[in-house]
Amino acid sequence: MANETPLTKEAILDAAEQVLRRYGPDKTSVTDIAKFLQVSHGTLYRHFASKAALRETVTERWLDKCVSEPLEGIAAATDGSAAVQLRSWLEALIQKKRLYALEDAEMFAMYSAVTLEAVDLIAAHIDHLVKQIAVIVERGMHSGEFKPGEADAMARAIFLATTKFHHPAFVREWSSKDIDQDFDAVWSLLLAGLQ
Amino acid sequence: MANETPLTKEAILDAAEQVLRRYGPDKTSVTDIAKFLQVSHGTLYRHFASKAALRETVTERWLDKCVSEPLEGIAAATDGSAAVQLRSWLEALIQKKRLYALEDAEMFAMYSAVTLEAVDLIAAHIDHLVKQIAVIVERGMHSGEFKPGEADAMARAIFLATTKFHHPAFVREWSSKDIDQDFDAVWSLLLAGLQ
Repeated sequence: MANETPLTKEAILDAAEQVLRRYGPDKTSVTDIAKFLQVSHGTLYRHFASKAALRETVTERWLDKCVSEPLEGIAAATDGSAAVQLRSWLEALIQKKRLYALEDAEMFAMYSAVTLEAVDLIAAHIDHLVKQIAVIVERGMHSGEFKPGEADAMARAIFLATTKFHHPAFVREWSSKDIDQDFDAVWSLLLAGLQ
Repeated sequence: MANETPLTKEAILDAAEQVLRRYGPDKTSVTDIAKFLQVSHGTLYRHFASKAALRETVTERWLDKCVSEPLEGIAAATDGSAAVQLRSWLEALIQKKRLYALEDAEMFAMYSAVTLEAVDLIAAHIDHLVKQIAVIVERGMHSGEFKPGEADAMARAIFLATTKFHHPAFVREWSSKDIDQDFDAVWSLLLAGLQ
């Protein structure tokens, strides 16, 4: 083998991400990734049981790095209006999704496919995001800006009620001329429910 | 031609619906529908410019008959609580979608496909439903049960915020054990926003 650095899981995922971006999720095989790493097929299968497992792990890491972690910064702020913070958090989520759909189209396409295939992985990602919303809602309840209530249930409701604006099934509607006005209408009603 | 009754648009749509239910939307051709009606291919094309146009008109009629019209009855009621009426309306919409997904699977599959293809048709169907919600919201505002506000924008927000529970992209999630609890969470937040 030409490649003498030890083959870590991270190195495989880095390679897989590069190859997936180059060929697209449908056309990339485990063999393509093995070739890129200059290792055998079997070596890769020692780390990932199947192509599906590899795709899912790449998607999971991409969602953490490109969605959950940047949003964490917004959710962690502890000053200013919770309503403004919540709207910023939702807009950041929505903008990220729209941006990746255009500018990281291959990874976005894989994420769309994995959303249908890997229910548990996506449920865990959503739980992570809902916890961030709950932190903001709790802060708003604590300061008296929001009515008291069950922050976790409200956070989940906020995520679900904005599905149309961040779920990849609606990617084609995100370029509609009405989409921002529609988000405003939903946001106003949700905010009225919180205050 | 064996069939001597005049070929009305309704008769073609009735036949198309039967044939589509039998073979499924992907496997049904215009020829299958022509054969069923014992007319030529060309006769059908005089009424519908393309297979897509025929599928869309069948779907439009199915949505009117099976979704919009039955819900109209709920929206038209003028007594009792508007909140109870609104929840009944939403639950009826959700139950209808779940029922058709299971018991009228071929028509539901066609509707799912048409949702992606025929943006204007679906937008008109949604406008129709949003108008029904607006009637309920206005009644609630008028009676003082709901806060004053823009009933049309609120109605659209309510429809959009419940997307996950009635849009065909989520059909596989409707059998999840959490789906009713999720609807309750969204409903509570929306109702708090209205009251």
